[in-house]
Amino acid sequence: METRVSSAKKEVIISDKRSTVLIGERINPTGKPKLAAALQAGDLEIVRQEAINQVKAGADILDVNVGSATVDEVGLLPKAVKAVMEVVDVPLCLDSANEKALEAAIKVYKGKALLSSVTGQEVSLKVMLPLVKEYKTAVVGLTMDDSGIPTDTAKRVAIAYKIINEAAKLGIPKEDIIIDCLAMTVGVDNRAALATIEAIRKVKADLGVNQTLGASNVSFGLPDRGLINTIFLAIVIAAGVNCPIVDAAKALPLIRATDLILGRDQYSMRYIEAYRQRQKQQRA
Amino acid sequence: METRVSSAKKEVIISDKRSTVLIGERINPTGKPKLAAALQAGDLEIVRQEAINQVKAGADILDVNVGSATVDEVGLLPKAVKAVMEVVDVPLCLDSANEKALEAAIKVYKGKALLSSVTGQEVSLKVMLPLVKEYKTAVVGLTMDDSGIPTDTAKRVAIAYKIINEAAKLGIPKEDIIIDCLAMTVGVDNRAALATIEAIRKVKADLGVNQTLGASNVSFGLPDRGLINTIFLAIVIAAGVNCPIVDAAKALPLIRATDLILGRDQYSMRYIEAYRQRQKQQRA
Repeated sequence: METRVSSAKKEVIISDKRSTVLIGERINPTGKPKLAAALQAGDLEIVRQEAINQVKAGADILDVNVGSATVDEVGLLPKAVKAVMEVVDVPLCLDSANEKALEAAIKVYKGKALLSSVTGQEVSLKVMLPLVKEYKTAVVGLTMDDSGIPTDTAKRVAIAYKIINEAAKLGIPKEDIIIDCLAMTVGVDNRAALATIEAIRKVKADLGVNQTLGASNVSFGLPDRGLINTIFLAIVIAAGVNCPIVDAAKALPLIRATDLILGRDQYSMRYIEAYRQRQKQQRA
Repeated sequence: METRVSSAKKEVIISDKRSTVLIGERINPTGKPKLAAALQAGDLEIVRQEAINQVKAGADILDVNVGSATVDEVGLLPKAVKAVMEVVDVPLCLDSANEKALEAAIKVYKGKALLSSVTGQEVSLKVMLPLVKEYKTAVVGLTMDDSGIPTDTAKRVAIAYKIINEAAKLGIPKEDIIIDCLAMTVGVDNRAALATIEAIRKVKADLGVNQTLGASNVSFGLPDRGLINTIFLAIVIAAGVNCPIVDAAKALPLIRATDLILGRDQYSMRYIEAYRQRQKQQRA
């Protein structure tokens, strides 16, 4: 199954038969007070710089999220998208809970965007899927609904089915839906990560769609978070995630190693290239 | 499925429902010229020291292998086993290609040993399984036969079936067989690691037996081997390996993180304990 997204100059194809696609997560004010303050002042310099850095670090797609309580997203998201398009060539993931902000951003975007996100909630399906249909975008589908994020694997998979079925009713193909089985914090519930892994395996086996995941929450509140995130990402990629949302600078080495192990890196070329890049940076 | 092995003082239970069991690999002269020379001189001091170090580092079982072309294993293996039993309490894996050395070692060993190993080769099945039967040991079954190590997943799984079936004919229960799907070098064949992972998943799904693996070969010839080994171990443990053969000092952190993610570490206690241990060692 191939999901295609594009910018004006580049197409990215997400597929199990290819290298894992890195969606850069850094353009998001959550937990970043400096970026939040800059966005509130309408200053997009940090956004431009993060975009350049993430692409240099290996991001294939950039997530652009400017959402916070004190910001007018409808005005700001299109500006941020334009700013990012000025400095990098990669496709973008337009990320907002506000459908008007998403639509405004889609209108300035050049290419086939990825939208983030639709959920199994009735209101979300009703508002987001028509946007996906009208502008022929791809979309991230989160396995949560009106009763929250189910701890139960089968219920999460059922939500993935629901999103895909509702999309199909509008003629949106399965290839344009990227499912996110949602990572919870293992320090709070010791079966939380396993529930996500099992949902990913089941979605892959039953639906065969491409899958994303933001993995870093899993380690919240525990020591040596980098180790937990590394192990978790490797396991979820082996289970079926093929376009995780990551800090590219941190995740590139482990993702290249995972692709190498999963037989997606002929002659180990991309692994060795990433290694050389690291060596060069360490010397610099 | 539970595999039980024991020393005079300790029982170790290998099971998917429990923490991953670490089989310490360091008592083996392959690639260790100093240890090889000491063994040839009949000096067991390094063996004792490695045993103490590996158990301190978190090994639950120790593999004892003294094999090299220039050593009388039949005489030396029992001596090494005695030396290790003097300094540590953990169960041992008696490891030799020479069945006479294994039998001599079993005779001095106190407890239910793990033998390494039987293969699908006719001569191996004929010679090793009667030992397992007679001395009521557990045994590692390697998925290779007279034509070598199959690259094909189905053939490796077929060999696992064969070993288990031949053992059953002698009344050896499935629980006493630990399958090793064998890791090959990914730098030589980029689908080598995937073939092992797929064989592990299939053996787990179809046979449900416990599984070991020596993982470090996978990265041979590539840079940053530690990263590749870490990622590979995490993925194979998630796939079904529950008693890998490892250098405990290197592998403990990643194995504890993997168990945490797989829901085998209530309240994150073993993960945090291993983290504190590392902190203490770094300060010392």
